[in-house]
Amino acid sequence: MPGSRAAKPPKSFSLGEIAGLVGAKLKGDPDIRIHGLGALEDARPDQLSFLIDARYEAALAGCRAAALIVSPSFEHIGLPLLISDKPYLCLARAAQLFVQPPALQAGIHSKACVEADADIGEDVSIGPLALIGSGTTIGRGTCIHGSVHLGRDVVVGEDCVVHPGVVILDGCRIGNRVIIHSGTVIGSDGFGFAQDEDGRHVKIPQAGIVQIDDDVEIGANCTIDRATFGRTWIKCGTKIDNLVQIAHNVTVGEHSILVAQVGISGSTRLGKHVVLAGQVGIAGHVEIGDRVRIAAKSGVAHSVEADQDIVGLPAVPHREWFRMYGNIQRLGRFKEELRRLKEKVQQLERKWNKE
Amino acid sequence: MPGSRAAKPPKSFSLGEIAGLVGAKLKGDPDIRIHGLGALEDARPDQLSFLIDARYEAALAGCRAAALIVSPSFEHIGLPLLISDKPYLCLARAAQLFVQPPALQAGIHSKACVEADADIGEDVSIGPLALIGSGTTIGRGTCIHGSVHLGRDVVVGEDCVVHPGVVILDGCRIGNRVIIHSGTVIGSDGFGFAQDEDGRHVKIPQAGIVQIDDDVEIGANCTIDRATFGRTWIKCGTKIDNLVQIAHNVTVGEHSILVAQVGISGSTRLGKHVVLAGQVGIAGHVEIGDRVRIAAKSGVAHSVEADQDIVGLPAVPHREWFRMYGNIQRLGRFKEELRRLKEKVQQLERKWNKE
Amino acid sequence: MPGSRAAKPPKSFSLGEIAGLVGAKLKGDPDIRIHGLGALEDARPDQLSFLIDARYEAALAGCRAAALIVSPSFEHIGLPLLISDKPYLCLARAAQLFVQPPALQAGIHSKACVEADADIGEDVSIGPLALIGSGTTIGRGTCIHGSVHLGRDVVVGEDCVVHPGVVILDGCRIGNRVIIHSGTVIGSDGFGFAQDEDGRHVKIPQAGIVQIDDDVEIGANCTIDRATFGRTWIKCGTKIDNLVQIAHNVTVGEHSILVAQVGISGSTRLGKHVVLAGQVGIAGHVEIGDRVRIAAKSGVAHSVEADQDIVGLPAVPHREWFRMYGNIQRLGRFKEELRRLKEKVQQLERKWNKE
Repeated sequence: MPGSRAAKPPKSFSLGEIAGLVGAKLKGDPDIRIHGLGALEDARPDQLSFLIDARYEAALAGCRAAALIVSPSFEHIGLPLLISDKPYLCLARAAQLFVQPPALQAGIHSKACVEADADIGEDVSIGPLALIGSGTTIGRGTCIHGSVHLGRDVVVGEDCVVHPGVVILDGCRIGNRVIIHSGTVIGSDGFGFAQDEDGRHVKIPQAGIVQIDDDVEIGANCTIDRATFGRTWIKCGTKIDNLVQIAHNVTVGEHSILVAQVGISGSTRLGKHVVLAGQVGIAGHVEIGDRVRIAAKSGVAHSVEADQDIVGLPAVPHREWFRMYGNIQRLGRFKEELRRLKEKVQQLERKWNKE
Repeated sequence: MPGSRAAKPPKSFSLGEIAGLVGAKLKGDPDIRIHGLGALEDARPDQLSFLIDARYEAALAGCRAAALIVSPSFEHIGLPLLISDKPYLCLARAAQLFVQPPALQAGIHSKACVEADADIGEDVSIGPLALIGSGTTIGRGTCIHGSVHLGRDVVVGEDCVVHPGVVILDGCRIGNRVIIHSGTVIGSDGFGFAQDEDGRHVKIPQAGIVQIDDDVEIGANCTIDRATFGRTWIKCGTKIDNLVQIAHNVTVGEHSILVAQVGISGSTRLGKHVVLAGQVGIAGHVEIGDRVRIAAKSGVAHSVEADQDIVGLPAVPHREWFRMYGNIQRLGRFKEELRRLKEKVQQLERKWNKE
Repeated sequence: MPGSRAAKPPKSFSLGEIAGLVGAKLKGDPDIRIHGLGALEDARPDQLSFLIDARYEAALAGCRAAALIVSPSFEHIGLPLLISDKPYLCLARAAQLFVQPPALQAGIHSKACVEADADIGEDVSIGPLALIGSGTTIGRGTCIHGSVHLGRDVVVGEDCVVHPGVVILDGCRIGNRVIIHSGTVIGSDGFGFAQDEDGRHVKIPQAGIVQIDDDVEIGANCTIDRATFGRTWIKCGTKIDNLVQIAHNVTVGEHSILVAQVGISGSTRLGKHVVLAGQVGIAGHVEIGDRVRIAAKSGVAHSVEADQDIVGLPAVPHREWFRMYGNIQRLGRFKEELRRLKEKVQQLERKWNKE
């Protein structure tokens, strides 16, 4: 049935083929047949596994995998190996060979609700109880899962995956190969109010849109507000985790990483390759330069120049934070030194006065 | 089709009319025809724009707008101007003239699911795949967008807008002119458990409701829990941003502002005109007085008297926080002074002992 | 109609019966008829109320309730009493007698969408606009409310309640007596990327599942990501509040409590009876021992041994935090002492030099 789940063909590759496809150095028999991937402690004897983080080396004892992806530091392990100095990248590529995202069969499910003037591309799949609003365009190969709500005049590009329960509101524009996880809301009103003479909040209508560029991935239950005027803009290749809040008129530059529960206030601009760890908050109307990295739970009230690592509440450069925090930890010792010094001075005073 | 989007008529006003409607002083030709609003860098030559925040003055160079809303400090600009010492309020009012919230045609969409004994007022619109539970009442002029879920015995007042994907659970009561954004859940169970003899958590059933008063706006993906008994209560005119958590039995007073990702624990009471900046957390069973303002990311464990500005983790009055933080920043200098003083005292001791 | 709300029979118990059922000592007439529960200020004359937290004692003045659940410290109150040294537990049990969770009539609503090969147990109720995917199994007595989305090959156990708007994605496994509140997403992709040679983020497909064990309750708008391989695992009896983020491959031990807006990063393992207060964040790949309690808003970057209470950003043991914070508060005094000491040393030096 169109819009139902498509069956997945089983897949296998030889270890030699995988080495070539993921760009790793092979150690061992290239003809070993690999039928899937698994974690070190769970992988079956016909599966590939990986050992990258030394913290998990102990699990090697019980490992039954046919072969391992490893970094050069594990080259000595007595198993067939795929060795790379970018082992996570090899893992990602190997996993992409075996793990298919859940797909629907092309076609519109009989219980989807597609307005007559929506423009649905070739090989699009639309699941049950999905709603496609009037004037909305869906590009070739995109999968709109069940229970998704697309408003009016939305544009979704090609080869996107929109997971169950996503809401994309009127006029928002999504690029190609974008993945949006369940429960995320794109295009809710920005939080804009003016106070009247009596301290009541008068709504500033939010007339802009959200624009999401190619190859962006957005986690579950995020909120990305539409701009007051113009656009809120997530640029190419950026990856956003769950429960992230992006306010109106924010721009997030290319290939940035926003970890879970981050919040970015209105009109703030992030550069390229920015990394915000979990639960970071950034004030409105500031600029965060390219490649800035901000530690978890930091609060940022000012603009930050490119290439800085900052941390803390309020956030300061890494080195400064460690100095300040070290000083705080040493306060007990300061107190003790101050006490001793006071005694010595009192002794000196007493001696002086006695003379 | 009922429940589908209504077409919007194009609108225009003369600059003189707008000056009167928004309460601004006009400088320039009152007959200029205005067809919409836009940001400084985007506004078209038949649109009104605004310059309020001096940080954006540079964008004036490329501005093509017909006229600007400005504060008196920009009175010298050589363009037709609407001048006001409440420019944001003028902007809000001007935008309300031109920007219409997305509306549905009155009527119930054929793919909505409305239980037989629901009570639907005049001029109500209900979108596709919306669910209206048994015994639920919807007031005149309210718009229930598609994919909304209203439980049983819910009351929604007049002229409300409930955006796609909202869930309002059994028995909750929503006032008039309330706006609720996508993905928000109203009336989920409060988080209440008692521990038994073995440290297991026994659920305290949550029998109360949520009451939302007139003119409240609630952002996307918020959660407002029902009371254990009685009600969780958001009072008139309060505006809530995205991803805000309001626990059972909380009361939020009139005309307050809760910025994104704020969390308020159970039974806490906020006064009127309270402002909580982003990611603030407030403990349970405390009282926050009228007009209290709490800085972003602060954690509040105690009650706070009216008219205080507090900040920090734990939150303290503004001035106290700056003193403490200043002292922390000066710790390096303290350390240095302490070191020098120690040397001097040692010198004095040595001299003394030599004598 | 199947899948519609079932009517609730009115209930009453004698005070003596309730005392026996909740395990409390009765003071007063055992034949008093109780028809429900209410808060101290709202309870009707035929209802039971409670006074447990001394902060609410003032409300006793207006109390019209027939009887009260109290702790032994309120034994002197001149009303019929149910006295217990576990009064919250008595309250929970008494409330369970009177307050029924909203239930649907058994059966599948005509507007639900159940794929042909889903396996629906006896006495299951499925509400309108719910979707049950192919290969999914629902155990006996479970209630799937309207607007729920269950993917393919999901397993939901017996006597569960899945509230409106929940999304449970392919392959996830839910135990018995699990309650999941509205808007929660279970089984979204973990946030896993490898960087390629150009700093672009390459997706590591997420092939694992989420497993939720018996008697877990999960709040509204939470996100629980599927494992990269293997499972993300919430163990028996754990209770999770709203807007909580649980990353891929996390394990949460039995009977733990996670308060609202907590975030736990990937592969972290929590023990049993752990308590995380609101807005806590925990880094990835760490272990939190049994019975650890972490104060609100703390940030935890390292593993924590069992039975510790920690607090702060970064989190440290309770006692250490109070010492550090006390020292910070005393910095003004340190500064003053240091200044005075400097003066004294200068005086001594001057005296010395004069001689």
